[in-house]
Amino acid sequence: VISERLKKQVDFIVELDRLKQILRRTLTLDGSRHENSAEHSWHLAVLALVLSEYSNDSLDLARVLKMALIHDVVEIDAGDTFVYDEEGQARRPALEAAAAERLFGLLPSDQAAELRAIWEEFEARQTPEATFAASLDRLQPILQNYHTRGAAWQANGITKAQVLARNAVIAEGSTVLWELAKCMVESAAQKGWLPEENS
Amino acid sequence: VISERLKKQVDFIVELDRLKQILRRTLTLDGSRHENSAEHSWHLAVLALVLSEYSNDSLDLARVLKMALIHDVVEIDAGDTFVYDEEGQARRPALEAAAAERLFGLLPSDQAAELRAIWEEFEARQTPEATFAASLDRLQPILQNYHTRGAAWQANGITKAQVLARNAVIAEGSTVLWELAKCMVESAAQKGWLPEENS
Repeated sequence: VISERLKKQVDFIVELDRLKQILRRTLTLDGSRHENSAEHSWHLAVLALVLSEYSNDSLDLARVLKMALIHDVVEIDAGDTFVYDEEGQARRPALEAAAAERLFGLLPSDQAAELRAIWEEFEARQTPEATFAASLDRLQPILQNYHTRGAAWQANGITKAQVLARNAVIAEGSTVLWELAKCMVESAAQKGWLPEENS
Repeated sequence: VISERLKKQVDFIVELDRLKQILRRTLTLDGSRHENSAEHSWHLAVLALVLSEYSNDSLDLARVLKMALIHDVVEIDAGDTFVYDEEGQARRPALEAAAAERLFGLLPSDQAAELRAIWEEFEARQTPEATFAASLDRLQPILQNYHTRGAAWQANGITKAQVLARNAVIAEGSTVLWELAKCMVESAAQKGWLPEENS
């Protein structure tokens, strides 16, 4: 006999499997296919594990890992929104809030409240953990683009000015990692993988 | 100027992207394709986040999350070994130890030692965190199989007796989750998704 509580927890775990089918604009580093949001979330958590020493502020790493794991689950209902899609970004908060209500609502109420609070903290970017997690969430696609010769930038007509403007928030979480990001952007531009402006 | 330390950390993060290309026997829950080990690692960490209350012993959840994130990275060199492949399981330890040496060795030495110790702890299954993480690593494929009508079991000629024998270790980490696993196995057998023995 399986408890009602455990049934709800399994329903949530089963539903979250759908994140494996949500495709992002970025490619895997071998260039063979688009990344999905589940494997991106894993990679983001690995970044947190390895790079936490570069946070501007001291951190509760466990909380950053939890944020990395659940930050994108709302995309199961709301889809992935490209960081350079301004219209999509304007629509995103309402869609994702409804998704959070449904998805975290599958859990027992105590866990629903706990995980929703972690997701809302990530979105609000007011705590050291959320600010750093958000910085890594911007750094990871730059890494993916740099190592795939700017594939997602070029496919979507993105310029160096756009990349620098949209990702300057990385500095809020880590000045060191913003320096790293700028190095990759400059190098990509010099190699012809990222135009200065739209032609 | 990027420090040598940060360069090593980025090399490790870039190399780990290859885990996204390591395919497992199990399917994603929509049945459309095989799971890869990166998204499996994410899913395993989500299981840990939601199900930690069922551990037989009290846990450091952060350590379980770290184990879930890195437990399969050795597959980048050693490949995924099917849990029912006895010959493969016999070869696995030596192959994976060499992989751990190379992969964690990409990191600065302090982090290489830290992450390798976490991986070795997971493999040894002697601590509450490792025992529970290993239990979840057995439970997750049973969930995937149950929700894909036993697809990976049937494709590989696996019987109910094999599933029960190979996964009884789940009880070492969680008696509650072993009850859940047995319920799914019994139900799958009744539905005709898992034969009692090889025909």
